[in-house]
Amino acid sequence: MLSKNKIKFINSIKKKKYREIHNCFFVEGEKLVDELIYSDFQVNEIFATSNWINDNQIKTDSYPDIEVNEISENELKKISSLTTPNKVLAIATQAFYEYSINKIQSKLSILLENISDPGNLGAIIRIADWFGIENIFCTNESVDVYNPKVVQASMGAIFRVKTHCIELKDFFSDFKDQKDFNIYGTFLEGNNIYSESLDKNGVIVMGNESHGISDSIKPYINKKLFIPNYPNGGKTSESLNISVATAIVCSEFRRRV
Amino acid sequence: MLSKNKIKFINSIKKKKYREIHNCFFVEGEKLVDELIYSDFQVNEIFATSNWINDNQIKTDSYPDIEVNEISENELKKISSLTTPNKVLAIATQAFYEYSINKIQSKLSILLENISDPGNLGAIIRIADWFGIENIFCTNESVDVYNPKVVQASMGAIFRVKTHCIELKDFFSDFKDQKDFNIYGTFLEGNNIYSESLDKNGVIVMGNESHGISDSIKPYINKKLFIPNYPNGGKTSESLNISVATAIVCSEFRRRV
Repeated sequence: MLSKNKIKFINSIKKKKYREIHNCFFVEGEKLVDELIYSDFQVNEIFATSNWINDNQIKTDSYPDIEVNEISENELKKISSLTTPNKVLAIATQAFYEYSINKIQSKLSILLENISDPGNLGAIIRIADWFGIENIFCTNESVDVYNPKVVQASMGAIFRVKTHCIELKDFFSDFKDQKDFNIYGTFLEGNNIYSESLDKNGVIVMGNESHGISDSIKPYINKKLFIPNYPNGGKTSESLNISVATAIVCSEFRRRV
Repeated sequence: MLSKNKIKFINSIKKKKYREIHNCFFVEGEKLVDELIYSDFQVNEIFATSNWINDNQIKTDSYPDIEVNEISENELKKISSLTTPNKVLAIATQAFYEYSINKIQSKLSILLENISDPGNLGAIIRIADWFGIENIFCTNESVDVYNPKVVQASMGAIFRVKTHCIELKDFFSDFKDQKDFNIYGTFLEGNNIYSESLDKNGVIVMGNESHGISDSIKPYINKKLFIPNYPNGGKTSESLNISVATAIVCSEFRRRV
């Protein structure tokens, strides 16, 4: 059974403020909870229907520290953020990762400036997972990575890709003496990405959905890229969606390796 | 002023059934209505705040057939499908396009099998627009292209890309004697798209979000493609989001031209 206090608590952590206070977030549905259990994340509590509990006995028995609470379909509806609640909801502790310039220098990473749509952020985490990009840096003003819609849209990739919340100035000042390290960004006046030389390592900067890369970041970018439309110069949309553009850029980097 | 009947009518066409009965759909916000007015679509009525009407006098004067109705911000809220209504809502007639095998054979097209998420369909229409793909074929079971969320997510690309609602069997039977024409699809067991030869023309089939390409379509596909993850064989997400995968496939076709 679910106490009123527990319902109140779970509903409170739908908001970033309370997720930060309690240093936790929640994960919903069979597939995602499955990935969560097998991930390095600390799972605190599981709320599930009797059906799920019966089907997953072996799994939960292997992790005796996880408290499993049986709840009814109706109770699940009261705490779920999904239109169609799916058997199980788990509460986990947020992960905070350390990074060092040295390690980042030998990898390909993504930096998102003030990304605002949770669906886009989730999709980009999934893209990073697919293309073996271990680290995503998000500016402080970005949508919270532990927003339930981000977690859902990441389809479990959030348990593998390391996300960092950063202060832009600190981040770039770390790299200012690394002359050989490339910071890439997409611009309408950039060079054709298909023919431009691309390093194996670097940081790919993607700007906000409406405003693109801001003037405060531009000076740090030493390789400006452009995804050409087809036919060149034809009448078309003003831009591509940010997750779509990120996918094309990452694909182009990985194709060359 | 907005009559009760008009409010009822506009709210009714948020549903596919009534959009079909009245053969219309609606478009919201300054940017999209602007693109609509300059497109080949027939605009029936515009409902806008006095602000919008004053700012767009020159535009609407050039199209005297369009009825422009002044409404208040409060009235706009009653008919809008947006969280933050944006000055203007226009009602337009749905477009139906003809196609012939001959024309399709000399182009690159996209076929979507039972795509269900309106955000994904809108994003794919935008991708097609960017990459000069004139025609998108959607199976009958797909989400309606004139769904308000599809229109919104297409960011105006829906006014340029031709979308066709098709019966699968009819579509493929048209192509059965065209031996040289390629039907492409993405599969986990497909060939690496980066090294596979790709024609300039063909149909790219993308499957449903959850189920991929169905067994009934597989026999028609003569080029199976795969977007390799990185590093090859690394632990990663099961798949990419459908709009993201479509973007990478289209980018790869257009890169080669």
